[in-house]
Amino acid sequence: MKQFARLPGIGPRTAERLAYFILQQSPEDALALSEAIQTVKSQIRNCKQCFNLSEQDLCEICRDERRDQSIICVVEQPGDLISLEETGLCNWVYHVLLGRLAPLEGVTPDNLTIDQLIKRVETGQVKEVVLATNPNMEGDGTALYISSLLSDTSVKVSRLARGLPSGGSIEYANKSILSDAIRGRTTLE
Amino acid sequence: MKQFARLPGIGPRTAERLAYFILQQSPEDALALSEAIQTVKSQIRNCKQCFNLSEQDLCEICRDERRDQSIICVVEQPGDLISLEETGLCNWVYHVLLGRLAPLEGVTPDNLTIDQLIKRVETGQVKEVVLATNPNMEGDGTALYISSLLSDTSVKVSRLARGLPSGGSIEYANKSILSDAIRGRTTLE
Repeated sequence: MKQFARLPGIGPRTAERLAYFILQQSPEDALALSEAIQTVKSQIRNCKQCFNLSEQDLCEICRDERRDQSIICVVEQPGDLISLEETGLCNWVYHVLLGRLAPLEGVTPDNLTIDQLIKRVETGQVKEVVLATNPNMEGDGTALYISSLLSDTSVKVSRLARGLPSGGSIEYANKSILSDAIRGRTTLE
Repeated sequence: MKQFARLPGIGPRTAERLAYFILQQSPEDALALSEAIQTVKSQIRNCKQCFNLSEQDLCEICRDERRDQSIICVVEQPGDLISLEETGLCNWVYHVLLGRLAPLEGVTPDNLTIDQLIKRVETGQVKEVVLATNPNMEGDGTALYISSLLSDTSVKVSRLARGLPSGGSIEYANKSILSDAIRGRTTLE
């Protein structure tokens, strides 16, 4: 019960219920969970190049030779990478920061993989860095910080578009969404 | 009760409750509602130029001489105009379509104020038309139709930016939002 209760979102009552469930399971089923936890901790690590989750030193995306290695898309977490990949539009490689700058919580550049990103860019074969940190204050701050580090290189730095969310409505969009949409308006051909 | 039940979102039970409330009100309070309904129907109409709601022939915005009359922002409904105005970023004038093209519901260009928009543009002092229809299928269709009508004029046609909504997150954005964000990514200076 104590071990379950340490997991996020699981209180003492749920922990109790889970523990009783394990007691009722067959030994095989219970051991399967135990082994899965050991396997994930021993076999899944961060890719040495991009810090995505991986079972090998280099993740599947970094090993994929059909990918355009000259465009690096910078995300906060592996979950963001998965969402972007699901669009089917990304033929680039990634760099996972493993967080975002949050000075108030004590998260500084040293706690992220920013140094490693800069080193990757400095190898010279990188043409574009796409900053895909989240569209909120901390994500914007992180993007700004990275773009300032890259400002004296020749690499193109871009940011995912901000504006009205597809499927939304103008009447119920908040002021910051509408400001982004007005300021970023695009000319039709 | 019958009259209340005809209003949107008011069912027979609510209509009953409202009717009993009116019976309990003082005659003055009850008549104030009655008169407000008469006033709004007799005094509020559509602006002759932009079709926004107005108490006079020309609405407040069309009469405002500090506005840049060379930029017309095209919206579906007066509610969209109000949301855009609240950003404080708009010094342009508007054109309210009073709907959007929806062929399946029988809403064709003739049901909207598109003819009047084209006539306004043809007066010659208009430099930009900002299409601010909603970021959904019907809004996009309406914007496409209007931009095709304006394609042989010299006026600049633009569309509000699409992308990640400010304050949102990449992990939980859907595919169309992420596709807009990837395709529309902007280069930082």
